[in-house]
Amino acid sequence: MIGIKGIASYIPAGRIDNLVQAALFERDEAFVMAKIGTGTLALKDAAEETSDLCVAAVRNLLAKSPALRLDAIEALVVVTQNGDAEGLPHTSAIAQHKLGLPRHTACLDVSLGCSGFVYGLYVLKGLMEAANLKNGVLVTADPYSKIVDRSDRPTALLFGDAATATWIGEDPIWKLGPVRFGTDGGGAEHLVRKKGLFRMNGRAVLDFAGTRVVPQIEEVLQLAGLTLDTVDAILLHQGSATIIDLLVRNLGENGGKAIKDLCGVGNTVSSTIPLLLERYADAPNWRNLVISGFGVGLSWGSAVLVRNTCPAASNEEGRK
Amino acid sequence: MIGIKGIASYIPAGRIDNLVQAALFERDEAFVMAKIGTGTLALKDAAEETSDLCVAAVRNLLAKSPALRLDAIEALVVVTQNGDAEGLPHTSAIAQHKLGLPRHTACLDVSLGCSGFVYGLYVLKGLMEAANLKNGVLVTADPYSKIVDRSDRPTALLFGDAATATWIGEDPIWKLGPVRFGTDGGGAEHLVRKKGLFRMNGRAVLDFAGTRVVPQIEEVLQLAGLTLDTVDAILLHQGSATIIDLLVRNLGENGGKAIKDLCGVGNTVSSTIPLLLERYADAPNWRNLVISGFGVGLSWGSAVLVRNTCPAASNEEGRK
Repeated sequence: MIGIKGIASYIPAGRIDNLVQAALFERDEAFVMAKIGTGTLALKDAAEETSDLCVAAVRNLLAKSPALRLDAIEALVVVTQNGDAEGLPHTSAIAQHKLGLPRHTACLDVSLGCSGFVYGLYVLKGLMEAANLKNGVLVTADPYSKIVDRSDRPTALLFGDAATATWIGEDPIWKLGPVRFGTDGGGAEHLVRKKGLFRMNGRAVLDFAGTRVVPQIEEVLQLAGLTLDTVDAILLHQGSATIIDLLVRNLGENGGKAIKDLCGVGNTVSSTIPLLLERYADAPNWRNLVISGFGVGLSWGSAVLVRNTCPAASNEEGRK
Repeated sequence: MIGIKGIASYIPAGRIDNLVQAALFERDEAFVMAKIGTGTLALKDAAEETSDLCVAAVRNLLAKSPALRLDAIEALVVVTQNGDAEGLPHTSAIAQHKLGLPRHTACLDVSLGCSGFVYGLYVLKGLMEAANLKNGVLVTADPYSKIVDRSDRPTALLFGDAATATWIGEDPIWKLGPVRFGTDGGGAEHLVRKKGLFRMNGRAVLDFAGTRVVPQIEEVLQLAGLTLDTVDAILLHQGSATIIDLLVRNLGENGGKAIKDLCGVGNTVSSTIPLLLERYADAPNWRNLVISGFGVGLSWGSAVLVRNTCPAASNEEGRK
C-alpha cells in the first residue's frame, strides 16, 4: 500500500519585507497581518531556476530520509506552471539530470496551481501502481516571483517562493484516502498569466473558495467515514489570511481544526499544504487529516490522509 | 480492469505543401519523401487555440463512442507543451468549460512532448484507479505551428498540428501491459524552446533514438512474455522518415512490423502514436502491440498493449 513516507522543503534564502512593500501601497502592518498573514515573503535568487528549487527540496528529502537512496527513485513528478526557461522541455527532466537520478526514472511535469499537491499525490501514486514502481518523489515548485507584478498590490504582497519534496512508497506514514477533484474553466480568467505577469481577481477567487471548498471537504470526509467533528485537522491551501478566515467561518464550530500559517514565506502555491504537513503532521494525536487545495483553473481537490498506525505490521503482511 | 476503449482524432483543415516549403530550402520531392515522409503538413487556423483542438478531438470521440456520455467523463488529462495563451491556467480546465464537462471532472495538463501519449496512458489509468474514477479521456494536443521557425529547414518541414482523444475505462479493447520509462535531462538542450521558437539538434535526437528505443521495446516485450518475433506490430512515434528508417534497421528482421506513416499530417508530437492506433489497430489479427514514444526531455517510454479478447466475459467477471 503506497502513501506518504516523508516530506521535506526548500525555502530560498531571500526575503521580501512585506511591511516595506505594504507602505508603498499605503497599507500598514495591521492590514498585512490581518489580510495577508505574513510579514515576510520568501524570494528565490534571480539566478535560481525552478529546477534548482526542485533539486534543493529533493536533496533535503534525501538528507532526512536515510532509507531513500537517490538511485532507488523511479518516478519524479514536478507540479509547476513556472518551470525552467520557457517550459519545453519539462522541468522534471532537467531536475533528473541535475540530481543524477537514474535514466530509467519516469519524469513528468503536472501543470496545476494551488490544487496541484492534492492532484499530484494521486497522479504519482496511480502512476507508480500502474507501472509497478516502488519509490517516487512528488515535487511542488512554482516560483511566482517570476511572474508577480511588483506594482500590483493584491498579488505583490501575497506570493512567496518555496519547493517541497514528498516521498511516495510502500509502508507509508500517511495512507491516501478518498479524494475528490473539481474544475471550472469558466473561472479561468480570474487567475491568469498575461504578457508574462500574473493577474488575479481576488473577489472572484474568494467567492469560488467560499462556495466549493467546504462542501468538498465534507464529501471526502463522508467517503472516509469521518465528519468535521471526528477529523483531527484540516490543512487548507494557505492562499491568504482572508481566505483562511473565510473558510474557518464556513467550517463552523470545527473551524479551529484548520491551521492558519503562511509559514513566514507567503502563498507558495502548490507548496503550502506540504509545508503544513512537514511542520505539523508529526503530532502523534493526529490520526486523520483532510487536505484541500484550490486556485488556478479554477481547480480544487480535497483528500483524506490516514495515519498508518502499524506500518511494521502492514509491512510484514505485505511480505506474506 | 481499465484500458483503452476508443480513440478519435482531430486534424485541423489547414495544409502546408511540404514540396513548396522544401523548394524554398532548395530541397526536392525525393528529399521530402525520403527524409520527412509526408508531402503535406496539417496546420491549425491561427484563431484555433490548443483547447479548441482538444474540444474537437473529444467531440469526435463522443460521436464515435455512443456508450460514452459527456457527463460520465470524470477525468481529462491533456498532454501539451503548447497550451492555451501563456499556459496558466492549464488547458484542460479551459477545455472542461468549452466542452461543458461536469465540475467534478479532474483536469490536469501533463507537460511532455513526443513520449507523452505513453506516459499519459499510465498517468490517467493510475489516477483513475487511485481516485476510483470510471471514465477518463486522455487528450494529446501540442500544436508546434505555434513555435516552429518557418525559416529553419530541419523543423519547418517536419511538424504538423493534430489532436487525439483516447477513452480510458473498464471493459477495454486494449489492456495496458508492462511499461518502461526513461529520462535524460542531459540532452535537454537538443529539443528546446528559445525566445518562443523551437530548436532541434537533429543529429543528437537521431543518436538518442537509435540508442534508447529498441532496447526499451525489447525490455517491455520481455516483461510481457513476448519478443520481437511474437509481437504483432510496433507503433513508433513518427518523428520523421529518417528516424523510423533507423529504428526499422535496428529492429532487424522484425523491422517490417514497425509502421511508417506520418498520416499526411507530419510529426504531430504526442499525437502520432494514437493516430496510428486509430488508423491501424482495428486489424483483428493484431493481438498485441508495442508502442514507443521518444523526444523532448530527453524522454522516452514504451508499453505493451494487449487486445482484450473477451471483453464481455471480463465484464461479467467484474460484476461478480
